[in-house]
Amino acid sequence: MSSSSQLLETAVDQLATLPGIGRRTAMRMALDLLRREPHEVTRFSEAVRRLRDEVRYCTVCCNISDQPVCGICANPARDRSTVCVVEDIRDVIAIENTRQFKGLYHVLGGVISPMDGLGPDDLNTRQLFERVGRGDIVEVVLALGATLEGDTTGFYLHRKLKEQGVEVSQIARGISIGGELEQVDEVTLGRSIADRKPYEQGVRR
Amino acid sequence: MSSSSQLLETAVDQLATLPGIGRRTAMRMALDLLRREPHEVTRFSEAVRRLRDEVRYCTVCCNISDQPVCGICANPARDRSTVCVVEDIRDVIAIENTRQFKGLYHVLGGVISPMDGLGPDDLNTRQLFERVGRGDIVEVVLALGATLEGDTTGFYLHRKLKEQGVEVSQIARGISIGGELEQVDEVTLGRSIADRKPYEQGVRR
Repeated sequence: MSSSSQLLETAVDQLATLPGIGRRTAMRMALDLLRREPHEVTRFSEAVRRLRDEVRYCTVCCNISDQPVCGICANPARDRSTVCVVEDIRDVIAIENTRQFKGLYHVLGGVISPMDGLGPDDLNTRQLFERVGRGDIVEVVLALGATLEGDTTGFYLHRKLKEQGVEVSQIARGISIGGELEQVDEVTLGRSIADRKPYEQGVRR
Repeated sequence: MSSSSQLLETAVDQLATLPGIGRRTAMRMALDLLRREPHEVTRFSEAVRRLRDEVRYCTVCCNISDQPVCGICANPARDRSTVCVVEDIRDVIAIENTRQFKGLYHVLGGVISPMDGLGPDDLNTRQLFERVGRGDIVEVVLALGATLEGDTTGFYLHRKLKEQGVEVSQIARGISIGGELEQVDEVTLGRSIADRKPYEQGVRR
């Protein structure tokens, strides 16, 4: 596929770097953008550029945040003794939507995945251990996907957190095995948080 | 779905304006962009902005072009007596890939669609009639999708072009009825160009 415009080729190449987008879909997107008013496309490209350039993360929980401390961590009504550990910000949004959890979060920014070369030190694990080390946290709830990587990460965190003397629980495996957290419906996900049980029982299958 | 970052919300809103992209996919795209280096994301957003800001169209055929006259129109080896009329630049690319057509193109920039409020004057029809009026063109090949809108557009162009005394043909309906041009395989599309017949026979079904 080659067009008579380098501008178009470059834009299609870039759009095709988005996850799940092939060159044919990227071309359809480029043509759609071409039909818009220039100021609309500028707004689009600025939103993308600013997202990456100006992004900030909460200094407490590593959630994405426009402030130094995110709205959840700054909320005095939240239970500061319970911290829910999740893979990424989509999981925070999904759990918030269930309205079943009143504690704080900790966003790992990924899961341990030797295949992708991701170890514990590539995630926000140090910040988690430091938070727990400060002594206010009674329970850490592991809310990771029921995948090999999620289980590996949970096993690692459980071992380290137990050494720190904190309770470690895991959300109930009402969620289907092999599924990603973000794809679970709100009722099931809310139920699985209410049904959480001590980590030792969860891994003894 | 609401996150703790207005930057993220805005970027997701903008990505969700792309055709076929819902908010869940837009969120996945945003997280993917967040994982990249800032300079990579700048390159992405610049490619999109420049596409719309700096785009130029060939003054002869209305194809997208970085030069005043596109590479096809400027090529002395092309047959200047035959002009193939297409809906958009994807169709030019598709036909070029068949290597079955040696003439020039005319890009309408759409098809007549009363449902979308698109009439002949919203397309590059005036430029086509002016080109034909200059007298060098012997045959106009209509290569529009086999849809209601494509047929309507073809019928309109045939009527006007016949008044100008030019031959009007239509690519063979080897392409499946109801299909869009860009989705046809190259062999079928090339064959349908070789099999084109006078417009009158094409519409008599």
